[in-house]
Formats: sequence, C-alpha cells, structure tokens
Amino acid sequence: MRILGIDPGIAIVGFGVVDFFRREPVHIRHGVIRTPANTPLPSRLLTVYEDFTELLETFKPDALAIEELYFQKNVNTALPVAHSRGVMLMTAQRFGLPVAEYSPQQVKLAVTGYGAAEKKQVMEMTRTLLKLKAMPRPDDAADGLAIALCHAYSAGRIV
Amino acid sequence: MRILGIDPGIAIVGFGVVDFFRREPVHIRHGVIRTPANTPLPSRLLTVYEDFTELLETFKPDALAIEELYFQKNVNTALPVAHSRGVMLMTAQRFGLPVAEYSPQQVKLAVTGYGAAEKKQVMEMTRTLLKLKAMPRPDDAADGLAIALCHAYSAGRIV
Repeated sequence: MRILGIDPGIAIVGFGVVDFFRREPVHIRHGVIRTPANTPLPSRLLTVYEDFTELLETFKPDALAIEELYFQKNVNTALPVAHSRGVMLMTAQRFGLPVAEYSPQQVKLAVTGYGAAEKKQVMEMTRTLLKLKAMPRPDDAADGLAIALCHAYSAGRIV
Repeated sequence: MRILGIDPGIAIVGFGVVDFFRREPVHIRHGVIRTPANTPLPSRLLTVYEDFTELLETFKPDALAIEELYFQKNVNTALPVAHSRGVMLMTAQRFGLPVAEYSPQQVKLAVTGYGAAEKKQVMEMTRTLLKLKAMPRPDDAADGLAIALCHAYSAGRIV
C-alpha cells in the first residue's frame, strides 16, 4: 500500500510518499509544492491543483493522509490554507482516493508513541523509521512523511 | 459583459448571471449549487467543482465576482466554506477568468447606495434593477445576483 501524506499550506505544501511492504515502511519520496508570495490567491490555488495532480499521477497513491486544520491565533492565516486544502481534497476525490484526516496530536502519538512529543522527536523518529541517513528537509516535507506513517500506524478517521 | 456572482458556501452556493448591455443590467439566470449534508467533505467539494465548472462552460462569464469570507462567531463553520471557495477560485483561474472579491458592505453600498442596508432592501433593489416580477429565490441565489450587480457598479478589488 502506498500512502501520500500532506502537510497543507498555501505558501508551502509538504508531501511524503511511503510504501508499506510486509508491514514495513519504505521511503519513496518527499518534497514540497511552493506557490509564489505576492501572487493572487486564485493563481496560487491553480499551482497547488496542478502540482498536486502531478503527484497523484506520478506516484499513484492508494490513500491520502492529510493534517487537520486547527485554529491558530491568527484566523486570517488559516483561511488561505483552507482554500488550498479544499483544492487538494476535491482533487483526491476526483481520483477516487480515500482520504483520512489526522490532528497534529494523532501524528505525534502514532509516530513516537507520545501525543505531546516535541517536533524534533517526531522528525528523528520519522527519519529512523524510514531508514534515512539525513533528516528530511524542509520541515514541511518531513511532516508529510510523518502524516503518511501516522496513517499506516493508526486506524484513522476517514473524512 | 457577462458577470457570474457567487455567494460561497458548502451546503449551498448561490449564483447569479447578469449581462451588462449599454450599461443596463440584464438578468440571465440565478440558482444554487447544493451539496448533500452528512456526506464526506471531499465528496461535497467535488460536487461544487463539477457544478461550478458546468456554470462556467454553460454561461461563459467574462468575470467572477465572489463574496469575501468574513469571520463569524463560529470559526468551524467558516472552514468548510473556505475549502469550497478555494475550489471555485482555482477553477476560475483555470478558465482564465478575472476574479473580484467584495465584502457584504461593498455589495450593500453598490446595490442600495447604503453600506448598512438591510438584507430586505438589498433584495428588493436587486429585483428592481433586474426588472424581475418576483423576488429571486432562495436568498443565496439573490445574493449571487447582488454580487454580480456590485461588480458592475464598483471598481472592485481584483484578487
């Protein structure tokens, strides 16, 4: 089974592709989709759509695991992210991909066994589980990998 | 010039199509896109995408005018709406459509000449300007028409 993990955003969307073979995770790819700042929102959303579509076409995942939006202090930051996340959820549905949502706490718990783990611990555990020599960069891509691992290690709330 | 006005939502998206010919507004069509409650969000977003795409293909508007999202008390209501709005903005960009955003106050001001007008006044003025015998229904569709009128009557902030 191949899982695409997504850390949603508008300036930067982190992704991680992980295969599960005989219950062991295998690292396939990680990276980010970037959209240029100072560009109108519709144009940034089209970039997300095109790059996300290319991810699905290239890696042909069996499931999408994506982080829930939770409310930060600044709600105005969350709105554009929700726009971008909507584009990805719609596209996943168009490809017939099952979608599961996880909270940051669920990701931490699944990857480290501790729901209040620090970001550093999650990243180190992600690196170890995927047998990577170096820490995956940038952080958004590492988060994408962690979310993909979370989907395999927990039941998941199917949205 | 043909303008598509959109009142964004997730359960219901109101739309209004208005032509401007010799500076006079001409009513073409109004209605709503509905998505079933108790359906997973990705599936509802795909319905919005498909129906919105059909609107663009059928009516071939020259511009999209869409209401801004403003924060209600319940932020959890605004998030799914932002997901849906993201799908529409992305699709408009895909069709090469210019997009303009308006606040509810701007719509009221443009249609009635008074930024704090009551909803009823906005609807009655919309009906009068478009020479409709009956009030357009439901309210979401009437809002779509008002937003289309607003775009023609004001400079508009191009997003």
